[in-house]
Amino acid sequence: MPQHLLTHFSDYISRQRLFDPAQKILLAVSGGVDSIAMAWLFKQAGYAAGIAHCNFQLRAAESAQDEAFVKQVAAALELPFHSVRFDTNAYVEAHRVTIQVAARELRYEWLEQVRAAEGYAYIATAHHMQDSVETALMNFTKGTGIAGLHGILPKQEKIIRPLLFTEKATLVAYAALHNITFREDSSNITDKYTRNYYRHQVIPRLQEAFPGAVRNMAATIERIKEAEHLYQEAVERHRKRLLFREGDTWKVPVGKLQQSIPLQTIAWELFRPFGCSSAQVQQVLSLLDSESGRYVETTTHRVIRNRQWLLITPLAMEAAPLVVIDADTPHVHFGGGQLRIRQQERGATPIPTAAAMAWLDAAQVAYPMILRKWKQGDYFYPLGMPRKKKISRFLIDQKLSLPQKENVWVLESNKRIVWIVGMRIDDRVKITPKTKVILSIEWMP
Amino acid sequence: MPQHLLTHFSDYISRQRLFDPAQKILLAVSGGVDSIAMAWLFKQAGYAAGIAHCNFQLRAAESAQDEAFVKQVAAALELPFHSVRFDTNAYVEAHRVTIQVAARELRYEWLEQVRAAEGYAYIATAHHMQDSVETALMNFTKGTGIAGLHGILPKQEKIIRPLLFTEKATLVAYAALHNITFREDSSNITDKYTRNYYRHQVIPRLQEAFPGAVRNMAATIERIKEAEHLYQEAVERHRKRLLFREGDTWKVPVGKLQQSIPLQTIAWELFRPFGCSSAQVQQVLSLLDSESGRYVETTTHRVIRNRQWLLITPLAMEAAPLVVIDADTPHVHFGGGQLRIRQQERGATPIPTAAAMAWLDAAQVAYPMILRKWKQGDYFYPLGMPRKKKISRFLIDQKLSLPQKENVWVLESNKRIVWIVGMRIDDRVKITPKTKVILSIEWMP
Repeated sequence: MPQHLLTHFSDYISRQRLFDPAQKILLAVSGGVDSIAMAWLFKQAGYAAGIAHCNFQLRAAESAQDEAFVKQVAAALELPFHSVRFDTNAYVEAHRVTIQVAARELRYEWLEQVRAAEGYAYIATAHHMQDSVETALMNFTKGTGIAGLHGILPKQEKIIRPLLFTEKATLVAYAALHNITFREDSSNITDKYTRNYYRHQVIPRLQEAFPGAVRNMAATIERIKEAEHLYQEAVERHRKRLLFREGDTWKVPVGKLQQSIPLQTIAWELFRPFGCSSAQVQQVLSLLDSESGRYVETTTHRVIRNRQWLLITPLAMEAAPLVVIDADTPHVHFGGGQLRIRQQERGATPIPTAAAMAWLDAAQVAYPMILRKWKQGDYFYPLGMPRKKKISRFLIDQKLSLPQKENVWVLESNKRIVWIVGMRIDDRVKITPKTKVILSIEWMP
Repeated sequence: MPQHLLTHFSDYISRQRLFDPAQKILLAVSGGVDSIAMAWLFKQAGYAAGIAHCNFQLRAAESAQDEAFVKQVAAALELPFHSVRFDTNAYVEAHRVTIQVAARELRYEWLEQVRAAEGYAYIATAHHMQDSVETALMNFTKGTGIAGLHGILPKQEKIIRPLLFTEKATLVAYAALHNITFREDSSNITDKYTRNYYRHQVIPRLQEAFPGAVRNMAATIERIKEAEHLYQEAVERHRKRLLFREGDTWKVPVGKLQQSIPLQTIAWELFRPFGCSSAQVQQVLSLLDSESGRYVETTTHRVIRNRQWLLITPLAMEAAPLVVIDADTPHVHFGGGQLRIRQQERGATPIPTAAAMAWLDAAQVAYPMILRKWKQGDYFYPLGMPRKKKISRFLIDQKLSLPQKENVWVLESNKRIVWIVGMRIDDRVKITPKTKVILSIEWMP
């Protein structure tokens, strides 16, 4: 097997169209056997690549040794080396997230920066077949729909996973065959607890029943992924049949929906884009038997029974007070409390971690600023994330109750949102090493 | 929960349209907590029902005690009682099947006989939520497609499973609440080994990670079942787009198929009805890049590349020799060897177990008989099975190689197949207690 690994590797990359051989790939390398084997495979296959290593500084000397080791591998393979050290614990405190979330956000944000800055086409991670199987199996056990069973995808935006075709045992054998050294304990910090439980307790039990369990499950996943494609095709047809637009409003004919089979799933796919949770689908379906005027409110829309139609309308944001803040407004009183604003030199003070306190790079913010309630369609770049995010989605992730959500204010500058007040600043206005002047805003609810 | 069980039970039956309250249901009751609880639920809900118990006589006194216990429950509930004793071990030897297969075949055959004879609408089995989850999980681990993940279905032909909505723990609590006794060790003989391993080793591990694992997985299965419906809808559309009939031949346009996404799954669904195995799909797809004249043979068809088409034609059965056997032909020589035929009184001799020897009820067989190779479309009622089966399917299940399959002969009488020579007789001509004269046929290859 390990002898053929290189061939299977190249085959997989071309069959899945992961990248073009002329493109340069940034390899995320922790120092463990998976990512080290990946680096060697890229080198052996002759693809242009560079190595990126994140030091999360969570295991003191060990973390430093991992970093030194990966640097040495990069030198041996004659590949460019990029590395970074994170104050992961500080990030955890500042954003009130778990270590896993912190590590993941820090890692992907930095990898994406390096990728874009250094002209790499994609970021490659060393997830293998079992990682994917574990993901699908965990979702199965947690409760999921068809989309939760496709496992880890080989390509998503700028991230590729060129080792998904192979088992860890094959990577280990390949390393042994080529006398490739790696760091034994380079633990996958971004990915712990439940996954490790599945890895060490569940999968081995399944392998006792069926020695080929991992490969079998990978085959299942592959088929489900294709089945999902056909499923989406059918969903799309039902959407066209059942959903009609009239300006801001969407209409669903009651009779046609009522006769749709399978009703639950079709309703879920139909109303999901309008902020409907899976638990709310039942409520929406109960409108099929109710009188006109009844309605259900999702996070973003109202679904109203109106004779033979369900009408879907955006939730009207109340004519919200809007506070304009000028450069000479140190105090702002508003519905959500008050803000105290001041400017200061960068200095050596550490960035405050309290969520009620925002430090923005003054050079990135312009007056007048606007303070208002958030509304549908709002988005921002949450601090520490490379992609923009809808605020509606952000608030869902924050697990706010509906009344809490209705009371969220945002601070706007230059038509972009710079702070979800009391929650998270925008990544584009954060303090960087280049920041000279800080705009410090304190929220007192 | 157990207080509400009865309500949920009736709801499930009406929601899934398992049967009409006016219909009479035959309950398969082993004596274990699941089936005993089911009997009580039917009684409490006021449905008309009867109890059927199979004694497989595999555990001596214990089997007899199970039978006596279930009889007593039937009496207490004032429900009709039907029972049977099987010589399971003899069946195992006669048909060279495992105890599990023997028990299943005997059980369903007999249940169906009782059902039809006594005017029951359906046979109800006591499978519960976890049984279904185990099935899906085993399939997942063995490798399956979307159809393998829907778990146990609530209704299939004449069999219904009205307890699929509930967990075993609820059934146990219900039994405790109503002081319902059951047989502790009434093991589910039809269903052992792998399933027990999942039940005792795998599921508890998953429940440690997610206490609601069984319910979660049941919810997953429910969604997959709906997704499968939409999947089939999409498959049907592709079939209409890609498959054209011309007399005996079906045509698939190469260009259109080539551009179909997802190709593997569409090809599998397209060619499967033509005897194509999942392993052969690759071979068929390679015809997309081959020159005219290349072909792949499935078990039943030939798929030929012919310019811009793939043509699917039934495998021409060779103009097969056909041997007519009259009442006065004790010896028959034919391509597959020779047959020696004689009649004898029933007597006390046990039915022979060798597959080369067929004992038929002479009263059910008429001359002339015809000996010929099997052909597409042939079917029979395999001994011990209540349903007819295509011979093509039977031969697949017997795991014969293609050349072996081509050499299978059948014996026909009255236009029905009475023996797959050297393999299995038809259920309709088997020896019964009423048999007086035996037609004994020995095959010498």
